[in-house]
Amino acid sequence: MKALSFVLAFLLAQLFQLCANPGYDLWLSFDPLPSNIVQTKYAFIKSIHFEGNQDAVSANAIGILQRSLGRLLSADIPYHPIPGKKNQLVLRVRPDAAGLLPDGFHLYTTNQKLYLESSTSAGLLYGTFSLLRLIKSAQPVSNIDITDNPKVQLRMLNHWDNLDRTVERGYAGFSIFNWHELPEVLDPRYEDYALANASIGINATALTNVNANALVLRSDYIEKAAALADLFRKYGLRVFLTARFNAPMELGKLPTADPLDPAVQAWWKAKVDEIYTRIPDFGGFLVKANSEGQPGPQDYQRTHADGANMLARALSPHQGVVIWRAFVYASAPGQDRFRQAFDEFSHLDGQFDENVLIQVKNGPIDFQPREPISPLFGAMPRTPVMMEFQLTKEYLGQGTHLSGLAPLFEEVLQTDTQAKGKGSSVANILNGSTFGYARTGIAGVANIGTALNWTGHFFNQADWYAFGRMAWNPEMSAQQVYSEWTALSFPDQRVQQTALELLLSSRETCVRYMTPLGLHHIMAEGHHYGPGPWVSGVGRPDWNSVYYHRATADSIGFDRTATGSNALEQYHPGLQSVYQNTATCPEAFLLWFHRVPWSFQMKSGRTLWEEMVYLYDLGVQETDEMLQKWNGIATRCDPALFAQVQSHLRIQQKEATWWRDACLAYFQSIHQLPYPSFSHPPKYQLEFYKGLSYPYAPGIKPRW
Amino acid sequence: MKALSFVLAFLLAQLFQLCANPGYDLWLSFDPLPSNIVQTKYAFIKSIHFEGNQDAVSANAIGILQRSLGRLLSADIPYHPIPGKKNQLVLRVRPDAAGLLPDGFHLYTTNQKLYLESSTSAGLLYGTFSLLRLIKSAQPVSNIDITDNPKVQLRMLNHWDNLDRTVERGYAGFSIFNWHELPEVLDPRYEDYALANASIGINATALTNVNANALVLRSDYIEKAAALADLFRKYGLRVFLTARFNAPMELGKLPTADPLDPAVQAWWKAKVDEIYTRIPDFGGFLVKANSEGQPGPQDYQRTHADGANMLARALSPHQGVVIWRAFVYASAPGQDRFRQAFDEFSHLDGQFDENVLIQVKNGPIDFQPREPISPLFGAMPRTPVMMEFQLTKEYLGQGTHLSGLAPLFEEVLQTDTQAKGKGSSVANILNGSTFGYARTGIAGVANIGTALNWTGHFFNQADWYAFGRMAWNPEMSAQQVYSEWTALSFPDQRVQQTALELLLSSRETCVRYMTPLGLHHIMAEGHHYGPGPWVSGVGRPDWNSVYYHRATADSIGFDRTATGSNALEQYHPGLQSVYQNTATCPEAFLLWFHRVPWSFQMKSGRTLWEEMVYLYDLGVQETDEMLQKWNGIATRCDPALFAQVQSHLRIQQKEATWWRDACLAYFQSIHQLPYPSFSHPPKYQLEFYKGLSYPYAPGIKPRW
Repeated sequence: MKALSFVLAFLLAQLFQLCANPGYDLWLSFDPLPSNIVQTKYAFIKSIHFEGNQDAVSANAIGILQRSLGRLLSADIPYHPIPGKKNQLVLRVRPDAAGLLPDGFHLYTTNQKLYLESSTSAGLLYGTFSLLRLIKSAQPVSNIDITDNPKVQLRMLNHWDNLDRTVERGYAGFSIFNWHELPEVLDPRYEDYALANASIGINATALTNVNANALVLRSDYIEKAAALADLFRKYGLRVFLTARFNAPMELGKLPTADPLDPAVQAWWKAKVDEIYTRIPDFGGFLVKANSEGQPGPQDYQRTHADGANMLARALSPHQGVVIWRAFVYASAPGQDRFRQAFDEFSHLDGQFDENVLIQVKNGPIDFQPREPISPLFGAMPRTPVMMEFQLTKEYLGQGTHLSGLAPLFEEVLQTDTQAKGKGSSVANILNGSTFGYARTGIAGVANIGTALNWTGHFFNQADWYAFGRMAWNPEMSAQQVYSEWTALSFPDQRVQQTALELLLSSRETCVRYMTPLGLHHIMAEGHHYGPGPWVSGVGRPDWNSVYYHRATADSIGFDRTATGSNALEQYHPGLQSVYQNTATCPEAFLLWFHRVPWSFQMKSGRTLWEEMVYLYDLGVQETDEMLQKWNGIATRCDPALFAQVQSHLRIQQKEATWWRDACLAYFQSIHQLPYPSFSHPPKYQLEFYKGLSYPYAPGIKPRW
Repeated sequence: MKALSFVLAFLLAQLFQLCANPGYDLWLSFDPLPSNIVQTKYAFIKSIHFEGNQDAVSANAIGILQRSLGRLLSADIPYHPIPGKKNQLVLRVRPDAAGLLPDGFHLYTTNQKLYLESSTSAGLLYGTFSLLRLIKSAQPVSNIDITDNPKVQLRMLNHWDNLDRTVERGYAGFSIFNWHELPEVLDPRYEDYALANASIGINATALTNVNANALVLRSDYIEKAAALADLFRKYGLRVFLTARFNAPMELGKLPTADPLDPAVQAWWKAKVDEIYTRIPDFGGFLVKANSEGQPGPQDYQRTHADGANMLARALSPHQGVVIWRAFVYASAPGQDRFRQAFDEFSHLDGQFDENVLIQVKNGPIDFQPREPISPLFGAMPRTPVMMEFQLTKEYLGQGTHLSGLAPLFEEVLQTDTQAKGKGSSVANILNGSTFGYARTGIAGVANIGTALNWTGHFFNQADWYAFGRMAWNPEMSAQQVYSEWTALSFPDQRVQQTALELLLSSRETCVRYMTPLGLHHIMAEGHHYGPGPWVSGVGRPDWNSVYYHRATADSIGFDRTATGSNALEQYHPGLQSVYQNTATCPEAFLLWFHRVPWSFQMKSGRTLWEEMVYLYDLGVQETDEMLQKWNGIATRCDPALFAQVQSHLRIQQKEATWWRDACLAYFQSIHQLPYPSFSHPPKYQLEFYKGLSYPYAPGIKPRW
């Protein structure tokens, strides 16, 4: 009765709030459970005890448990410095615990006590949130025995955040990091950000854009980064910075940034030493070099390995690492861009120091709605290769399309590179089992900003969540992670079910109305907002849509077989053979690898052109269905949240039609074939779509 | 008992929140009152009734009352469609109510009923918040009779927000207006913003920067503005846009924007008609023309009146107005900038159409920590002159200094222009009583952004609040408005008292450590962050600090008497005589009007140099005291809020010292006089201060 009145009162209090602010709490609302559930399942958790000496991380885990369990169970859960006989939650760190890797945890009950054990104090945090998830979903914990070890060591966010708080490809407002007011002002968001990351196992964050600004290495900025690191430490979250390769020139006024120059090496060593005096657990540098205008070792006729190793040697005494990005396509502009990262890096395998990781985007081009895997996964047995996923949806509808990314993650992670025959999935490359990497990592480009709900589109929270969980365990399915997220994010079961369906199906829908059948890189130029299959004449050839689709009156697609660029040769034979002929190549990847006539016969019996129209139509139709589904739960969801998601779905519906119509109008203008009878022509002429202008689309540098 | 358990439960719920988000609710937290107070004072408010037909505004007022009273009184306050015999709050709109101006209200009790009466439905909103303020502070309402009419018609925010969401001179994050996702997505902030404005009487908002972008007049952007207007309407908040004067060229592709060209006039008329079809209550245009690079009528040898009237005639059929800014200093770069707005505008008095208002910054230069009033107040008897205050603290410490602006507002408003002899205060000019203006208005440049708490520095909420209240009634004192704000914002009385002291004294402190004795415009160039008394050689002469302070080895100050620029002649004789000789000129304005030797004897007996050092020292010392005062309430304030304000006070303390040391080092380098014995030299040499660089200080256009 008391608990019930508590719940009622709380709900009333929420109801009477004058201001609306849905979503700030992410998946971390631990509202009181019904008292009968508390009584029957969790009444035995009466206090918390920690064995041994608490450090800041374990003390934090205890505090989180007290606050969250207290709220879930509508009870005060005191901390007892003395172990109890029973009815206690006991935390302990055992560095030598059998079966536990660093950060792993063991949750088990014995003698009416619940134990949370780990080999590192950070593991207590991850166990804490595992336990809270169980209890929030009312699962029994009185007789459990769960061991959970992370499959990947470095689970990392990459912020493409600039020092002026703009965010490159950011669609959720601006950077949460207010460098100007740091180190003094610690925005409450910083700690909530760290908490959210800890709750899903993320243990590292690169605070600054890979298109780097040397200023972040100036002493006053190091102070600022240190203030964040100090705050993040008790959440097990380590800070990385991006290193501009010519910082010794821009900041240190040296005449060169040649990695083999002793003065350059000394500058970096001194700079790294300075950072570690302020941030003792500094993670290291994330580097984009010799790519898209960034300086790098090739400016001095040195290799990527020369550059990476120079930084690695400065970091090595402090146990720091270098994460060197393979997103490089500078050296041979005439060559198929698909090939370039592989051609630049695969031959350097074995030349990198042990504390260098190579970070590879999931696909060979650039985070398209669907890409085949990068051939670098499987190509560097002696160099740890990390994954780079993009959570911020540069190419999947930006801030306004519901497009759950976990199915994309799953598709990529489960693709078998066949590097050592079958079973060499990307997941197994990343977790180190295929090649025995000593270091492992997965990075995600953050989708976080100043939006009240952190991610702009509420459902983008699910991508942040899914990324953390799947970085912890790349074998988790999209279905599993989204089931967790929906259960944590919506109180109502029908809303949970609807949200789950939307999340699981939406990425395929997005592929259909944007880039079906293996089309890629046909978005608008610059801001990448909306369709632009007509883009040509921009900078380098491979910045243009026409370079990728190559549509003519007869045919379409990029021949990457032996008769074309032969990029396919970069895959191991087993995978190569799947893609290399049109009979076995999945239709979803067809135009990635093959140039085929518009009359090409698809499995459906339709021609390629008809199939393309069919899929664009289907994608649009599915956005109608998404909106209908959401409308079906109107009365079961927080009204402000419902309205916000609904408005985004309306935009998606409108923009899916825009994508369909603009792309079909363009391709039809090329081949002049009639529209299939099941469909209808676009609403406007091609020139209308080409004439649309959006100078203030977000995610690029603001213009005056 | 029930109410108590309610309160407890609510407090517990707050306590257990995992995430911290202090300040989002502004001054609008109406937490439950103690039940004994509810019982003894407000138990008679049992229901709400409205006489007559509700419109959207009055229905909104009823809803706000139900939610807020319900929460304050921990009770359900039902709406009764039938009038009760007693114990009821009755709302009614009587267009002909005696003694009520538009937006005014009458709150009174009779026969155990509480009446809220107004002549417009917006007046019900203002009365609603007046009543809520009374009840929140536990004042009796069972026997009241309060009539409150606004003294100024147009109470307006000006957002210097760009379409890409950067905010010129914004220090609270980025623009809350997400133009890209409008009109579909209505961020919950929009309605909360309208609510906050209504709660303090603000009834108009210009959404876009005065450095205007013609794109906002494109049809799709009008749709976006209309979505906001539709939302704001029920809060009595009317939307204005800024009009780029050459929009007919940029948007309409006309060859000219000459205001006397019939095609230009027709373009504006059609554009205005288009706006009104979408926004029937559109307020009108705010225009910056021929100033700082903006296009304007002078580009075609036309006058400001020609330009303003052309727009006014397009707006007039729809009851829209033109607000034309007098911040213009383009025509005579060689002349004292102090003089220019007056010289440009005063002779045009009588030439403006009746629906034009001239908006004048409070001082003749540009929102300095202390300025004398603009001589335009009192110079245009036949043209309504509006006030422009700057809430965003470009020159008063930007995002991080506590510097309550209400004392500045009060100082300006109470200055007597003596336009019609004594009694012609700025307040009386603005409220129309001096010259009988048919239209009146006060604008404030907004200090609002994406910061979780809206204004960055929590205490900046007090400026937004004070602006609204003092625009409603320019006779309110800083003491009165801040007493209201502190009572609404902090539950603890000692915190309220401390906050009140800080707010009332801090602007004078800021003047002391930045620009004592009438120094002005000596900040850093461009971003205006920090001191820059050495700035010279930038663009026009009057963009440089040395132009304003004119320090030499012998003397300092700007002679604006008859022996100098004679800007003083622009004031009416009564005011002129106060300032024109050093014996009567208040020392706070000394260097605004006089050039005096460093050895000039001050009232204190100190020389000018000694007095300057003394005041800079005092300012710094006062920032120490401010921090101490705040530390004294540590245990009585929300911990996250306490910490945030404390960190800002630490920055203020550090930057006050920076201002002192940099300015004194500079002036000492000019005259080489010794530091007075009571003080000590700056910590670093002048070159150190000149060498500091802050390329990412906020409020200017981000750079790559």
